Amino acid sequence: MKNSSFLGELIASIIDRGSSFSAFRDDRSIDKLCADLLSSKGEVSSRKIGSAVLTRYQELDGEDRRAFFQLLCSQMDLDIAALSNAVTAYGGDRSVKNLAALSAAAEAPRQELLRRLNHVPGATSALVNMRKDLLDLLPDNPELKRIDLDFSHLFVSWFNRGFLVIRPISWQSPANILAKIIQYEAVHAIADWDDLRRRLQPDDRRCFAFFHPAMPDEPLVFVEVALCRGIPGSVQDVLQDERSELDREEVDTAVFYSISNCQQGLRGISFGNFLIKQVVADLSVQLPHLKTFVTLSPLPGFADWLSGEQSPVSQDYVDTLQRSAIAKSDNSDSELLVSHNNQLRGLAAKYLLGAKREDGTPLDPVARFHLSNGASVLELHGLADTSPNGLQHSFGVMVNYHYDMDKVESQHEAFAQSGEVGASKPVSQLARSKVPADMRRSVEKEVS
Amino acid sequence: MKNSSFLGELIASIIDRGSSFSAFRDDRSIDKLCADLLSSKGEVSSRKIGSAVLTRYQELDGEDRRAFFQLLCSQMDLDIAALSNAVTAYGGDRSVKNLAALSAAAEAPRQELLRRLNHVPGATSALVNMRKDLLDLLPDNPELKRIDLDFSHLFVSWFNRGFLVIRPISWQSPANILAKIIQYEAVHAIADWDDLRRRLQPDDRRCFAFFHPAMPDEPLVFVEVALCRGIPGSVQDVLQDERSELDREEVDTAVFYSISNCQQGLRGISFGNFLIKQVVADLSVQLPHLKTFVTLSPLPGFADWLSGEQSPVSQDYVDTLQRSAIAKSDNSDSELLVSHNNQLRGLAAKYLLGAKREDGTPLDPVARFHLSNGASVLELHGLADTSPNGLQHSFGVMVNYHYDMDKVESQHEAFAQSGEVGASKPVSQLARSKVPADMRRSVEKEVS
Amino acid sequence: MKNSSFLGELIASIIDRGSSFSAFRDDRSIDKLCADLLSSKGEVSSRKIGSAVLTRYQELDGEDRRAFFQLLCSQMDLDIAALSNAVTAYGGDRSVKNLAALSAAAEAPRQELLRRLNHVPGATSALVNMRKDLLDLLPDNPELKRIDLDFSHLFVSWFNRGFLVIRPISWQSPANILAKIIQYEAVHAIADWDDLRRRLQPDDRRCFAFFHPAMPDEPLVFVEVALCRGIPGSVQDVLQDERSELDREEVDTAVFYSISNCQQGLRGISFGNFLIKQVVADLSVQLPHLKTFVTLSPLPGFADWLSGEQSPVSQDYVDTLQRSAIAKSDNSDSELLVSHNNQLRGLAAKYLLGAKREDGTPLDPVARFHLSNGASVLELHGLADTSPNGLQHSFGVMVNYHYDMDKVESQHEAFAQSGEVGASKPVSQLARSKVPADMRRSVEKEVS
Amino acid sequence: MKNSSFLGELIASIIDRGSSFSAFRDDRSIDKLCADLLSSKGEVSSRKIGSAVLTRYQELDGEDRRAFFQLLCSQMDLDIAALSNAVTAYGGDRSVKNLAALSAAAEAPRQELLRRLNHVPGATSALVNMRKDLLDLLPDNPELKRIDLDFSHLFVSWFNRGFLVIRPISWQSPANILAKIIQYEAVHAIADWDDLRRRLQPDDRRCFAFFHPAMPDEPLVFVEVALCRGIPGSVQDVLQDERSELDREEVDTAVFYSISNCQQGLRGISFGNFLIKQVVADLSVQLPHLKTFVTLSPLPGFADWLSGEQSPVSQDYVDTLQRSAIAKSDNSDSELLVSHNNQLRGLAAKYLLGAKREDGTPLDPVARFHLSNGASVLELHGLADTSPNGLQHSFGVMVNYHYDMDKVESQHEAFAQSGEVGASKPVSQLARSKVPADMRRSVEKEVS
Repeated sequence: MKNSSFLGELIASIIDRGSSFSAFRDDRSIDKLCADLLSSKGEVSSRKIGSAVLTRYQELDGEDRRAFFQLLCSQMDLDIAALSNAVTAYGGDRSVKNLAALSAAAEAPRQELLRRLNHVPGATSALVNMRKDLLDLLPDNPELKRIDLDFSHLFVSWFNRGFLVIRPISWQSPANILAKIIQYEAVHAIADWDDLRRRLQPDDRRCFAFFHPAMPDEPLVFVEVALCRGIPGSVQDVLQDERSELDREEVDTAVFYSISNCQQGLRGISFGNFLIKQVVADLSVQLPHLKTFVTLSPLPGFADWLSGEQSPVSQDYVDTLQRSAIAKSDNSDSELLVSHNNQLRGLAAKYLLGAKREDGTPLDPVARFHLSNGASVLELHGLADTSPNGLQHSFGVMVNYHYDMDKVESQHEAFAQSGEVGASKPVSQLARSKVPADMRRSVEKEVS
Repeated sequence: MKNSSFLGELIASIIDRGSSFSAFRDDRSIDKLCADLLSSKGEVSSRKIGSAVLTRYQELDGEDRRAFFQLLCSQMDLDIAALSNAVTAYGGDRSVKNLAALSAAAEAPRQELLRRLNHVPGATSALVNMRKDLLDLLPDNPELKRIDLDFSHLFVSWFNRGFLVIRPISWQSPANILAKIIQYEAVHAIADWDDLRRRLQPDDRRCFAFFHPAMPDEPLVFVEVALCRGIPGSVQDVLQDERSELDREEVDTAVFYSISNCQQGLRGISFGNFLIKQVVADLSVQLPHLKTFVTLSPLPGFADWLSGEQSPVSQDYVDTLQRSAIAKSDNSDSELLVSHNNQLRGLAAKYLLGAKREDGTPLDPVARFHLSNGASVLELHGLADTSPNGLQHSFGVMVNYHYDMDKVESQHEAFAQSGEVGASKPVSQLARSKVPADMRRSVEKEVS
Repeated sequence: MKNSSFLGELIASIIDRGSSFSAFRDDRSIDKLCADLLSSKGEVSSRKIGSAVLTRYQELDGEDRRAFFQLLCSQMDLDIAALSNAVTAYGGDRSVKNLAALSAAAEAPRQELLRRLNHVPGATSALVNMRKDLLDLLPDNPELKRIDLDFSHLFVSWFNRGFLVIRPISWQSPANILAKIIQYEAVHAIADWDDLRRRLQPDDRRCFAFFHPAMPDEPLVFVEVALCRGIPGSVQDVLQDERSELDREEVDTAVFYSISNCQQGLRGISFGNFLIKQVVADLSVQLPHLKTFVTLSPLPGFADWLSGEQSPVSQDYVDTLQRSAIAKSDNSDSELLVSHNNQLRGLAAKYLLGAKREDGTPLDPVARFHLSNGASVLELHGLADTSPNGLQHSFGVMVNYHYDMDKVESQHEAFAQSGEVGASKPVSQLARSKVPADMRRSVEKEVS
Repeated sequence: MKNSSFLGELIASIIDRGSSFSAFRDDRSIDKLCADLLSSKGEVSSRKIGSAVLTRYQELDGEDRRAFFQLLCSQMDLDIAALSNAVTAYGGDRSVKNLAALSAAAEAPRQELLRRLNHVPGATSALVNMRKDLLDLLPDNPELKRIDLDFSHLFVSWFNRGFLVIRPISWQSPANILAKIIQYEAVHAIADWDDLRRRLQPDDRRCFAFFHPAMPDEPLVFVEVALCRGIPGSVQDVLQDERSELDREEVDTAVFYSISNCQQGLRGISFGNFLIKQVVADLSVQLPHLKTFVTLSPLPGFADWLSGEQSPVSQDYVDTLQRSAIAKSDNSDSELLVSHNNQLRGLAAKYLLGAKREDGTPLDPVARFHLSNGASVLELHGLADTSPNGLQHSFGVMVNYHYDMDKVESQHEAFAQSGEVGASKPVSQLARSKVPADMRRSVEKEVS
């Protein structure tokens, strides 16, 4: 490998500025500051004003932030009359000049405002957090979605895949980054630094994250990987405290057991799919012994579906399952979940392969994510996540989605075009198994 | 200073991918590949197709590249009817949905194509080079300016100041970067590696460049700085082979004697102004002894102006000057340029302060750049650049533009609003000096 | 600053090998392996055998390790007859050849053995740990001190000040390094990662460590620094959970409140003095506002001395103090310690300035360290360390040693030559204060 | 790969101090400074005095440097009487105390002086240069070899293999390092930066160097490697300007065509053997296609041997060869060398396998180096180095030494113990070929 460390230098300077901008105070109102920023022509004052806007914004309380967004919404909106004229003009004379005018008129001034705010060193992270505030306000202030169109448009450009950097996260990584991994883990909570260490330090445990160079101390999304011999039957196996580390030669399977998005302000600007495939590619090169790449994933909507209208089983049965789940999560053993392992796997198979949203895509959000990435359903495991959360939402069932890089393209296409869900033969058979009469709902619905 | 080297790691992975993308070949025509890229939904195939497009593009000859741009122009243009409808719909019902539709309709599909091409690792540099080709075609194919609007729009977002990284360039920098400094130097050519070493290695010589993390081995713009005691009277002083290095305590003046843009494909996406001010800020912190920050700049339009209609002197006089300049650049001494030093400075002052374009801005492009950055004209030097180039275009005259950080804001504003050019008293007086009768043009034009 | 990141590269390869050597197994006995290593001439086999020795050593239990050291002691000792002959030969003919032979004969073969073991990548750390084992055995096996002479001789060369690297330790440092900081802190125990974060993350808290490039993930010694306004009166003030961070402009005092040696195997190869002075130098450059550099140090021998023969107070009084200390460390308030604050400071001053070892140096080990570094006693604080440890050994008293870089040289010389202890006027006066009659020992001993 | 960039940080501080120490001036004589350094107990003054000694030394002219070494020789020599007493004392009472005293007495005080000088940041490089001066003086001042024993003793410890770091040298390496590669290349001179670039930039050309962390910008030894398909027949093939780069899949042979020691002051502290084997190991991992590792080496003593007493050929024949070599190096073609290709190879085989020094080792220094490393003679090539140098000393013949890692151990042992030279069958046969009668020396000496 021929390489250079010039980037080391290059990045040393990024480090110095870090992820947070230098606060700058200014007496003008935030409205006035925004207006001045937009009309400013000097880049020095522009950065000062930008810094003042961001500083001021951070000091605003919730209501004032809402007012700020309202300002962006009402006073920096598209001028529809101007746009209409520009369209007409361009329709009449398709000159470059008219096209440029049209393009300018088609963009709300707040977009340029956001772009100028991003001139401030460290602003990118502040703007991502600003969008998080905005997203929180949307349910009660749907008109603000207009602004979010501009945030999204810019973020799609700024967080273009070509600018993202994949980094291994290890026990040698900086503590400030690791503290954020603990904070952002969304699937299987990390109890403390010892728990984290168990997930990072052994050679058969890996973690990878995407970063953006302008937010060097903020991971965007990360995935935790267990290198195993065969597919483990439960997340408890993966996360147990005492286990003997596997040698590199022994491992044949990489299990993605947790994927977490870190930045709420980047919702909808998806990277998870890129990350998994990049990790598959990187691990394949590093560890040629690896043959199988699977997830170990929850079925977050399974319990709800079993209680709902589409359920193939009676509410009585679901109630029994729930009591059993609660008992189990109290650490007492639960015979029912154990003895009904196969029934639960069968129901989960029906859920995964049969339960759909109106648009024909799977009801389960995790399933939608992996299947639309081109993965297929490989196997189901009962009592595979016996945490309270896992029992409550999935009755402990977990699923392996299979990333077979030779097939992801075609499976993705099949899924995208016809909603076809790839599944292994055993899981397909499970999905077709009969629900025993005593568990059956009066009006049974069978997966076709 | 508290810092981290995590970015070192982070960037190590950028390094590995370098600035150039992995070639990928595919039999489809480039038209088909572009269409497929736009309609692709899987990101794996998307990156493969993107890579195939870029690979194919690089193999095209000039005429086929023109055809490719024509394709972007004609087949991926704005759909004006659809946009018109979207404007009408939004005019009628200002819903978020209609706004989103309008925004989508207002963007030519080729913009999304370029965004997808940039998913390919190393693509950014390839796209910058693609725009260079495009700019070369514009004079003869003005309709292609439509496409350039999209390139520019994206580049402004991608090369946002917030994403640029300033790096000192030194004799410790990687040779591949330094080879590019030699190549890109546009003002005072660097003869060879020894010449480069003289400009980088001494402690009283500095160089800084902007980089973009996605193009880690391509400088975007760089500036060369000489740390001096007082303002040097000529670039020969600055660049002489044998000179004794100054101690840090002795220097009081930083002289920016060369600023070069490196990427023709980024024309109009200006960074030079940011760079100078950032360097002023950084050097001020590192070397508190520094009191004065000036350029030592050419007047590239001076000789032409003296020969033109606006000239205050006779063509005979200009011819004499030119003969004298040629003599001088043949290394023979030239009495005229020496004896007319003051006349030349006076004429140059008239040129800088008085010669304007139609829009009221200075005729000289370098003057426009620095004055619009908020610098002022501080001093003029005769026989200050005796290279053939310097004698031919500027009759050897050079100018110091003064970056006084306490005044750049106000001077920038004054210049932007009223075209007012800041100048020191001596230079203003020079500009008002009478042209001797024997040099004068029959119809004299005096600077007001 | 002109710099290079080439070392980044250079060090990347050190990282890869890490601090631990690759295990290599070999069936030969460790005695045979050592003999073969010494006689080996090929460096490949040499590294393999060396690795096998280190691997084997690590698997030995305590008794077998003792046997290994006995082997080094008896079979790889100086050949006194040969040496005697070499001395005689050299005495007769002072040729270079004879001198070389003498030098060779004056070195025990085990020294060459250790040098060859260190050819193995990662061996340095293993050898430091080996010496730790050896030091543990010395009290019961004093003859092994012979071997320690060789370890020490080599370590003094290997850990020459010129090879040590100072590094800031921050919340951005790698977690594996920080885990070791927690582990090695020897003065004020670090409770957990949150405690560590409070000591590292605020801008007015700093930490620095020495590293050796061959042991990149093992700190050798580190010091924790609080940047304060004025000198804090207690370590509780320094370590409190809730406090407001000071701005850089506000701080005028750097307080070294904890210094810990990390490697027991490097006992006697002192670096702490270098470290403190380097940190003083570095902080002075970074934060020119800093005027005062002091420690906040325990008096670990104070309580013992008060109970001993040299004590100026009665055993009754000491008993009362001890009961009071126990009460206080039970978190109940202790009036006596509060009301006797001044008496305790006076006694501590007598202890510090008057209590001596036979060789005339201060009885207190921490005092010996700082005073021999050229520091002076600046101030004493009562109830300044109310941890159980602090109350038990120092009755809560702490001392500021003052590092005045203009005086450390002369104070060091005075201390080294005449045992003169530098002290501020207030502390000197305190040391001369009379012990109240009711606390006095029957046979009073007054500090002169 | 799990890794850390902490070392990046760690090393950043090394960089800052660089390889050169800060000059410090002091009025004392160098004799007095050295005496004061030895008696100093404070490490601050110690570093100042040390810096003053090094600064003063660098300003001395040749004669004064000789005087300085004489001082070390005479006034800081071993005290033989004291040593003799210490030996007697230890002979009488083998106590640890006596052993420690003996060890101290067995070391000349100048060794401690050098150790203290090395406390100065950047001193290591200065001390290496100091030894270079010393080595230059040895031929005329043989008594100074006494001092060199101490330099060597320390350097062996300081430059222990465990502390050396291997680094790839590439076109991305810092220019200051590359400038030193140009300067230090000792086998096939590098004409200029373009020549260097041709040796570094192509993917089938590699270069590796050893560094010591205390001399980060000084390579110690480096090797240049050409990755080839098969073994090239000449160095002209390797170094030709225009050639097409090989793909990684095509290469099967790594050719070490140049090995240069960089630091004359480290003569005898050999690293070249470690470097070659490390590079073989590293390349084997990176490029599993590589099957053969050979050098392409000169025979620097061949021509001399042919002219000497041991020569199997007549002086007439050698004279003819020499004339032919001079003709060839004048770029005219030389029929003789071409037509006598096989004779020359035969003679070279006799030289390599048969010509010995008194101690039984090969006469050729390059052969001694590689054969004692465990390599064997694989092949000989005529007209393989047609540079003036190559023609003059080797009549253009070059040799491939073969590094077969499965055999280096045993071949090394065989060579070390019995002087046995490993050679391929073809070369062995060549060595036994008859010298034609017309070329033969009157008293022929045949290789047995």
